[in-house]
Order: sequence, then structure tokens, then C-alpha cells
Amino acid sequence: MKTVGIIGATGYVGAELLRILLNHREVKVTALSSVSFKGQDINSIYRNFIDKTDLVCDTIDDVLEKAEVIFTALPHGLSEGIAAKCIAAGKICIDLGADFRLSSEDEYKFWYERGFSHPELHKESVYGLPELNKEKIKKSKLIANPGCFPTSIELGLMPLLKNSIIDTKGIICDSKSGATGVGRGLGLSSHFPELNENFAPYKIGAHRHTPEIEETLGAMADDKVTVTFTPHLLPISRGILSTIYCNPKEAVDLENLYKLYKDFYKDQPFVNILPLGETACTKNVRYSNYCHISLHLNHRKDQIIVVSTIDNMLKGAAGQAVQNMNIVLGLDETEGLTFISPAF
Amino acid sequence: MKTVGIIGATGYVGAELLRILLNHREVKVTALSSVSFKGQDINSIYRNFIDKTDLVCDTIDDVLEKAEVIFTALPHGLSEGIAAKCIAAGKICIDLGADFRLSSEDEYKFWYERGFSHPELHKESVYGLPELNKEKIKKSKLIANPGCFPTSIELGLMPLLKNSIIDTKGIICDSKSGATGVGRGLGLSSHFPELNENFAPYKIGAHRHTPEIEETLGAMADDKVTVTFTPHLLPISRGILSTIYCNPKEAVDLENLYKLYKDFYKDQPFVNILPLGETACTKNVRYSNYCHISLHLNHRKDQIIVVSTIDNMLKGAAGQAVQNMNIVLGLDETEGLTFISPAF
Amino acid sequence: MKTVGIIGATGYVGAELLRILLNHREVKVTALSSVSFKGQDINSIYRNFIDKTDLVCDTIDDVLEKAEVIFTALPHGLSEGIAAKCIAAGKICIDLGADFRLSSEDEYKFWYERGFSHPELHKESVYGLPELNKEKIKKSKLIANPGCFPTSIELGLMPLLKNSIIDTKGIICDSKSGATGVGRGLGLSSHFPELNENFAPYKIGAHRHTPEIEETLGAMADDKVTVTFTPHLLPISRGILSTIYCNPKEAVDLENLYKLYKDFYKDQPFVNILPLGETACTKNVRYSNYCHISLHLNHRKDQIIVVSTIDNMLKGAAGQAVQNMNIVLGLDETEGLTFISPAF
Amino acid sequence: MKTVGIIGATGYVGAELLRILLNHREVKVTALSSVSFKGQDINSIYRNFIDKTDLVCDTIDDVLEKAEVIFTALPHGLSEGIAAKCIAAGKICIDLGADFRLSSEDEYKFWYERGFSHPELHKESVYGLPELNKEKIKKSKLIANPGCFPTSIELGLMPLLKNSIIDTKGIICDSKSGATGVGRGLGLSSHFPELNENFAPYKIGAHRHTPEIEETLGAMADDKVTVTFTPHLLPISRGILSTIYCNPKEAVDLENLYKLYKDFYKDQPFVNILPLGETACTKNVRYSNYCHISLHLNHRKDQIIVVSTIDNMLKGAAGQAVQNMNIVLGLDETEGLTFISPAF
Repeated sequence: MKTVGIIGATGYVGAELLRILLNHREVKVTALSSVSFKGQDINSIYRNFIDKTDLVCDTIDDVLEKAEVIFTALPHGLSEGIAAKCIAAGKICIDLGADFRLSSEDEYKFWYERGFSHPELHKESVYGLPELNKEKIKKSKLIANPGCFPTSIELGLMPLLKNSIIDTKGIICDSKSGATGVGRGLGLSSHFPELNENFAPYKIGAHRHTPEIEETLGAMADDKVTVTFTPHLLPISRGILSTIYCNPKEAVDLENLYKLYKDFYKDQPFVNILPLGETACTKNVRYSNYCHISLHLNHRKDQIIVVSTIDNMLKGAAGQAVQNMNIVLGLDETEGLTFISPAF
Repeated sequence: MKTVGIIGATGYVGAELLRILLNHREVKVTALSSVSFKGQDINSIYRNFIDKTDLVCDTIDDVLEKAEVIFTALPHGLSEGIAAKCIAAGKICIDLGADFRLSSEDEYKFWYERGFSHPELHKESVYGLPELNKEKIKKSKLIANPGCFPTSIELGLMPLLKNSIIDTKGIICDSKSGATGVGRGLGLSSHFPELNENFAPYKIGAHRHTPEIEETLGAMADDKVTVTFTPHLLPISRGILSTIYCNPKEAVDLENLYKLYKDFYKDQPFVNILPLGETACTKNVRYSNYCHISLHLNHRKDQIIVVSTIDNMLKGAAGQAVQNMNIVLGLDETEGLTFISPAF
Repeated sequence: MKTVGIIGATGYVGAELLRILLNHREVKVTALSSVSFKGQDINSIYRNFIDKTDLVCDTIDDVLEKAEVIFTALPHGLSEGIAAKCIAAGKICIDLGADFRLSSEDEYKFWYERGFSHPELHKESVYGLPELNKEKIKKSKLIANPGCFPTSIELGLMPLLKNSIIDTKGIICDSKSGATGVGRGLGLSSHFPELNENFAPYKIGAHRHTPEIEETLGAMADDKVTVTFTPHLLPISRGILSTIYCNPKEAVDLENLYKLYKDFYKDQPFVNILPLGETACTKNVRYSNYCHISLHLNHRKDQIIVVSTIDNMLKGAAGQAVQNMNIVLGLDETEGLTFISPAF
Repeated sequence: MKTVGIIGATGYVGAELLRILLNHREVKVTALSSVSFKGQDINSIYRNFIDKTDLVCDTIDDVLEKAEVIFTALPHGLSEGIAAKCIAAGKICIDLGADFRLSSEDEYKFWYERGFSHPELHKESVYGLPELNKEKIKKSKLIANPGCFPTSIELGLMPLLKNSIIDTKGIICDSKSGATGVGRGLGLSSHFPELNENFAPYKIGAHRHTPEIEETLGAMADDKVTVTFTPHLLPISRGILSTIYCNPKEAVDLENLYKLYKDFYKDQPFVNILPLGETACTKNVRYSNYCHISLHLNHRKDQIIVVSTIDNMLKGAAGQAVQNMNIVLGLDETEGLTFISPAF
């Protein structure tokens, strides 16, 4: 049984990783770290863990020492150095931050206002979208776990781009996310009386997931892809739903699109294509690692609308990270992740 | 003081009309009708009215007899005959349904699967978007109160279309509405455990507000306008927010757009343009008759994104109807409608 | 027209006061103060005020100079000194904090860990529950606006205590409040992902409204009253509902209780008694200044259960303060406060 | 591997049972029944099951034939006959309705307005609260799964009653439930715009869980127990929280109470006692089978307040039913039920 550690265990992503891993039958969590809560029982910070674990928040070095697989759930810029130590020590590192998601350092500099501190690592790292890169992930020791919005959009468009069905310019991604996406940090925008019963877009034209989306879609299309990406904040806890507008190169037929998607994802355990006539919704994937996709045309039948939905904390973060770990370790890809969404 | 009646008073729109009109200082509600609750006190159906009114649900004929201004808040197909009686009797009719919104009978047939029963009335009726048609409304006795989604989209795009700034083809309107939009009728999609913490689009490519949007935008542009319109249902009670994507004919500058909008709406008491850098959100217009609009570009600066938000029950229905009544009666346009949104 | 000022205008209570007063026809808001936002337009902090007011946040002294009626909406301990200045200058002061709510300095010391800084003022101040003290309020220049939980409980029990119907010992007040009660200050307990879909009591046996409740109920009963008061935090924005359990001294009849309540409150414009068989709920008073009360017995008919509900920000804070101002100034008690709750 | 069937599979409780059982490693669901959806794929009714199961809704007789363990999730009055067939066929029946919860037929008649149709079965049936009756459950073939409210209250009071610490008269149970408790049936009280942002008690003095609570608490105390039970409906999906007020026979000390509870429940895998100073909340048990209990005194230290919380659909219904099945079958009591609540 492999030993696993979480660096940044008291943020929402870290806590969610722990929750999944405590019920994983093939690995054992042996160490956690937290700067803010060092020395404290994790179960005193998150009472859902009462009587479930006695793990105490430790230092980063403790985690590096005690575990063979390391998850880093940290703000961008903090994972590169830790990843370097993992690689040097022969350990596996799965980064849930943004440090290794972009291959272009120029783009990274533009959006994150800093360069790569360990450029050599970026040649080894693999973008951890299993449905795109499963074979590469199997052989890697450094995985860049995708962003939440990008995961929903990339899974929604991959069959279209891989098959050159749509224009690669001007794809519109209107995405909506639940509030756990903001994390545990306090702010007026996530203060209950401000967000409850409210709805709005944010960071229009300025969200850092934009280059990740364009780069990954470009790799799928083997061409430059441009998107307009607009995230919105929903007054719900869980879920991302992306409504994606794209223009077919020639007239399309929904039945054929449906067959294309079903076939494309037939061996992927976490992607479900809804029957034509139905519409994907967040509740049916909530708290699960599944992605639901539905396919539509506008009323003139000249535009494809793809609706793609995931739980932002599971398939959009901690769940996908465990999926990546399972692949790297050669385990059943679904171990620890078979929880079915409680639809109500 | 004019006498006013509401036909269909026990639906959400009817009840909201009554609520506004009870505090209106220049008119008096003298009659209500309801098929389902005939003979019952309205305050026994909606307990927010306890000790505020003794009005009893009556028949349609009673309302027609007792009031000079008639609001019809009915499913489509039921208002034309009532409007005919109003006009014949020299009364004012403000219809909150869809019967008079479309001028093209062909479009109406396509989307509503029935023709006009009183085609002659459609020559007299005016589309009651005050910011577009105020002078015509003043002279009319038959007002087609706009749909909720169309109001948000039309106010958002009017300055761009009237000034020929954007392409008229392929405008994308990604709209989200609170659940009061579904009305008082029960259904699984508005059953609390199904909608709470859920989010999804609905009627993609098939929503009946589509032709209303295209027709009205076309009138603004004096050209054929095509849109892709996708409504979504939010798990909140109030508010519509439309995120509208359009392509400028030539490069635009946000400062200039802002000045254009400020100037365009300077005499309209219910449209507010947010300062650049801010984003419109539903909470700041909730329970009020105001529309908030914010202006944005995507990250490549080659696409305009307009965010337009209203309360679906006020500016999107009952509030706008009262605004229309004020205009028709020559009253202060804002009478009964100055309530400021409680932002939290 | 009287001039009015708000000290502490950028907190939720202050902003709500401003919202009501901007639509009040008999007074004019001439000054606001805020320590945190000095020099800023209030409408830049709360965008619901865009184009509605140009008031700028000023200092406390500016407010004292520019207004005849002063509202203080501050944390406890900060109002006494300001009230002293108001009284010295012949102005009216309505305090929405806790400084003047308790007449017993010993109780105040026990619960607030400080004494009165201006004990002489406490002889002049009146507890501003209009339904209890209207005549005293008319003659006062210093009003202690009641707490939100106490208002709901005191209105619920007043007819029973004034008529010696129930035991004065061991009354149980199980109260639930919406999240605007926590104010604008950030904290983990009001962080959206923590509070959403959550429910819990807080400060059991330790909430500072307890002595206010016991003292005011005691004055009603003309006897010592003891309560167990348990507040809970609801994942909604507005509303307080108190479920109050008390023991009748002898067998009671619901019909008689109902008549007693109806008669007791017949001249009070903001208290409504629901018909027997119905149950008060927060939605029907939301955003309004009304209190709804319903009366019940348990299944053995040996215990009275009173359900009393208000909007915590209106009848529980800013609305009641304006009601007090109207009384002090000899205006119609309901001016500015006739807004009917939008029940959905 | 035992075969399992669900009668009433398309209600919320039935669907939740299926969800848990699909991930249970020691049993296999072989049949479902539904009157309303006969012949339909369960995954077409609940899309969270897409690609997870191909089970089709069948008749009751099919389920009785195909499964060894039968869960009945039906309105009261419908399970007795089915249970009789199960017992006759040597099968195990776990009833999630009310038919077997009360041992007194008189009480049943009073609250349910009908008598027992199979009185002989009531001698065999066991009240399935594992923490109270584990040994009896092991030997039984007919389990009456407890109601949701009773489970929270009974677990909260059992240590006090078994140890004769409190008065058995006049216990007040102020309980609040999430909206999944109303089930899948439509009604105005669970129509989203009516329930959202609303809060109220219901069925005061008239809820059918009252006799179940009194009977079970009485069995614990070995004395007659009387309660006042008031359920409230929360605008959240999941969770029950009961705030329970009781009077100690003599002065109590919180430290001792805490030790008593910890010791009492030390061998019960699903009951957790929170450290003193903390308060139980619904979010930490949401979607899990755990019960969290916290202990408090009022400010005069003369009353005990117990806060007890569960997920109404898990420990309050389907989870507890599976726990009972595990006990009856001699499996690990926690199999299929170790899911840890995602606290956000």
C-alpha cells in the first residue's frame, strides 16, 4: 500500500483530497501539511473528520519524508520547488495548482506575472486530463492537474476539435461555478449575505484559466484556438456548468454528433453523454467525479451548443487528482471515485 | 384617481402587480379576477396582504366593469379577446402575456402554434418597452408588456444597434433567470429538492422569447438581427442576468462605449450604467424596477460583452407594466416604482 | 422637513436605514459617517444606490452638525458618547446598538464586560418598542432601538404576560435568524460555502440578547421572568422566526387566545395575527416592517406555542428605528414603512 | 452475495437506497418496483444513475420473487401486506414507512386513523434503531426503520434517559428538517419560489412522529415520557437538527455529561460526540450516515440543551436501513456507509 501526503491540506482542495483518500483502499495517507494550522488535528479544523482520522498538520518537509505520492494544493508559484524535491527523491508529485499547467512560459508570464523557476521540470510534467493524456500520465512522475473550468470545457469540446468539426476561432465559453471554487479564504464576494440570491460574472476577459483552455484546445485541434471565456459565480456550493457555443464548419446533424461523442468517450469511465433531448445539469454530478455532457443546436441549426458539467471540487480538482494518481500507480482508474451523485 | 383591475391576479405576476399598485398614490385597485380562486380573499391566498387589502377574486367581467385600466396576466392565447372588449369599451389594456408581443403573425404561428384571433388589434398595440417606444406608448390604449428575458437583452443592446456598432448576425445571449420566472404552477423542475443547489440551461434553441428578441432588436437595428438565445434556470428567487456576446464592426474603445451608453440612457429613470471596471449583478436590482448594465471586452479586445440585469418580476414584468401605465396615464413615470433594491 | 444623519452608514443596518430614508417623504438625509470609508460615495460601496444619492461618507462630527435626528448604528460602547453630544445639542438620537437597551448596569456589566459611561443618560432613554412604549417614545429624545431577537420574542409574548396567562419561569425561546444579522464583517461562519446548506444554533446560553429579553418581559409581567434563549443561524438572508414555548397557568382555549391577541394589537399598524390554523413564516414579512404572529397548542393542549416572525433588518433594526423616529417627530407612524413583503 | 430489492424505488428514499446499495460490496440489487414508472429504466428517472445501472422498474411481485432482502419505501398502510408475504417466504423485510414503528395499536389508530391489518407481525417486528436494539435486530426478519426526526431525538436523549438524569415530562424537541424530507411529491410548500429563503414550523402539535418519539423515549426511560415536538422546514436539501430542552433532576456538570455520552456511544460507529464548547451543525453530517451530538447548558445552568443532527435521508432513512440490513445479515455494520460528509 502506497503512502500518500497532502501539502496544503487545510484548504478546500486539500481537505477534499483527504476525504477521498481516507476511503481509498489502495493507498494510505501518512502526512499532511499546513502553514496556518501547523500542529493541529485536521479533525479539529474540519469536524466532518471527527473519529475518522488522527492526522496532525505537519511541515512540508515532514510530508516529503513520510509519503511516496505527494499532492500539492497550493497557490501558484509555491509548487515548483516542492515538485523539484519530489522528483529528485524519486517520488510522484501531483500538483493541483497552476504551476505546471501551461507549457508556454510566455503565456505564463503574461497571465501570472512571473516566469518558471524550474524550467527543466516543465519538460517532464504532463497535463493531467486523463481523457486526453492517459498514456503519458502512466509514465509520468509529475502531473499538472487541470483547472476546474478548463476540465469542463476541454471535455465538452474534445470530440469536436479532434475531428475538425468546428471553427477554431471565436469559441464562446460561458461558464458558471459554485462557490467552493473560491476556496476557504474570506472575501466580501463570498460573504453569505452578498452572494446568496445573487448571480454575476467576474474577471471578464481576465481569468487565468483562459490560456490553459486555449493551449489545451489548441493541442486537441492541432491548430491555434481562440476562445472568449466568461466565468460566473453561482450561489450554490458545488458544480461547474459550461455552456459552449461553436460554429460547425459544415451543417451537422445531432444524431451524428451524439454517436461521435458516445464513441469517443466509450472507454472513459467518468464521462457520460446524455441522450439527445436532455440537458446536463449540475445536480446529477454533484459530489461525484463524473462529467455529464449534452448536445444541442440553436433554433437556426447553424450553431452547436455543448453543455458540460462537473463537480468543481471532484472532477474539477481533488477527484481528478486521485484519478491521475490511480493511473500513475497502475491501479483501477476508478478506485475511491465510484461515489454516485446524490441527485437531491 | 383612476380605477385599476387585474385579470389573473393569483399568479405570481398578478400578485406582484397588486403589491405594487396597493402602494401607488395615483390609482386604486378596484377588482381582481381568478379562475382558480374565485370568491376568495386575495389576502388568504397570499398572506403578505393580510390587513392590507380586502379585495376578493371576482370574474373577468366584474373586472372589466369595475376598472378603467386593465392588466391581463394570463397564459398566451387568453388576452386577445379580453383586450378587444377593453378597446371596445374605451379602456386601457396592458397585457403581460405574449399575445401582442410579436407583430409577425407567421412568427407567432411558428412559435405558439396558433394565429392571431383579433388581427386588427395588432395594428393598435404597442410593444411596451418604454426606453424604446415611450412616445408611442403615451398614445396607445393597448400595450404589449415585453417578456422578461427580452427586456434584459434589448436594453443591453439598444445603444449598440441604434448606432450600428455591431454585427447583426450571430449575437449570443446567454441568459439566466431566477425561479419566480416559472410562476406559481408546480412542476418537478421547480420542486425545491430538484432545483436547490442545481443549475442548468433549458429549452435550448426552443424558447418562445427568441422571436420577440430578434424582432425587437431588428427594429432597433433597422436590419435583420439573428441571435442564439439560451436561458438557464438559477436556484434563486429573483433576477435575470444576460451575458451578451457581440462582434464590433470595427475596433472599439470601452471609454467610448461607456459614454455612448450613459448618454443614450440619460433621460431614462430606470436604466443605470455601471462605471467601467465593475460588473452588473442581480442583487443590486432585486425587488426593484431598475436595470443595471456593465460593459466589457474579452481578453483579445475583439468582442464586446454586455452584462444586463433586472428583476424578472419587476422590470421584467409587473414593474414595467406599471411604468407603462404611468406613461399612458400621463403620471410621473416612476410613481410606485422608486423602491431601491435591498442589496443584501 | 427634518434633517437626518446616520452614524455608521456603511454597515448593513446603516445602509438599510439609508435605503428606507431615501424614500421617506417627511425627512431628508443630509449626512452619513463611516470610519472605514471616509470620503467615499456611499453609492460606490453599495451599488443599489447608483444614481439615487450623492451622499459621501463623512466624520461623526459632520453628521452631528448637519442633522437634527441622528441614528447611531455602531458596535456597543460607541454610542453613549455620541448620544451625550446629541442630547446636549437638543437633537434626537436613536441608537441601534446595545448601549441603552438594558436599564440594569449590573446586567450590562455581566454581559458586556463594561459599565455605563454616561449613567445619567440612561434615565432619559426609552426602550423603543413602539407597541410597548409608544407614549414614552413620543416624549423622548433618546431611543434605545430593541435588538432583533428580542423584538420578535417580546411582541410574541406581550399579550400573554400583560394578562398574566403564563408562568413567568422557564419560557423557552428557540429563535432562528437569517444571515444579514451577522452584519457586513467577514468570518468563517458566514463564508458562503460554510453557511450555505448548513444550519446550527450558536452562542447557546451566552447570547447578549438574553438579558434584554428577560428585562423587557419582566416589565411586561411586572414580575421576574426567566427564559432559555437559543439563537440559530439560517442559511437565508432575511428573517427571524422565534418558536416560543410557555406554560399556561390554567387551561387555555385557542379561540380566546386569538381574540386576546387581535384585540391587544388592534391599534398597532405593524403587528398582524394570523388566523388560527395557519403558521407564521418568514417569507411573508421579508423586506417589510411587519411582524406576523401565529398561535398554537401542543398535542396534549397543555403548552402554548407562539410563532413570531419579523425581518431582522426592518422591524428588527432599521425599520423599527424609522418607526420610532416617526413617533418622536409626530409623523404618521407608518411613513416610509408601508412596503408590503414580496412573498416570493 | 445476497440479493436485494427495493419496493417503491422511485421515491426519494428508494432512490437513495439504490444509490447506497450500488456501491455496497456484499449485496447485489436485483429488482426494483414502482407503480408510477413501471417498465422504465431507473436511470432515465434519476440521471445520476446513467451508465451505473440498467435496472428497470418492475412490479412488487417481481421484487418479492427476485430478492432475499426486501426494502419497502412506501406511504404508511402499504407495507404490512408485503411484509407478511416476505415473512411467509422466509425473506427479510426492512420497512422504511411507519407501519411497524408503533407497538401500541391505539396510538397508531389515533395518529394514522387506521388499525393494524396484520397484528401478529407486530410481535415479530423490531424497532430498527441499532444503537438501542442491536441484539434484537440481529435476530429479526422484520425491521421497522425509525422516522427521521425520531432518530435525531432518540439518539440525542438516550444516555440521559437510560441513566435517569432528566425529568421525563415536558421535554421540548424543536426540530428542523431539510426539504428532501417532503419527498418527490409536488406541493406548494416545496415549490422553489415559496420555500427558498423561507422558514417556518409546520404541523405544530400534530406531527405523526410524536407518538414514535414518546414511545421510544419511554422504553429508554422505562417510564412514561411526554414531549412537545415541533418540526420546522428548512430551505436546504439535507439535514435534520433537533434542539432538545430538558430539565435535569439535580444539578449537572457538563464535563460529566460529556463523559457519559462518550462512554455510552463508544462502540457505536455512527454516533460522534463533539468536544465541549462546540456545536453540532448539519453540514458535517450531510450525505453521511453519522449523527453528531453536542451538549450545552442554558445561562442559568438549570437546563440541558442537546443538539443532535443527522442527514435525514441517510441516518434518518436509507442509511439506517442499510445499517440494519448489515446487522441482520451479520456483515460489518458500516459496509457501504463509510462515506465521510463533504463539509462544504
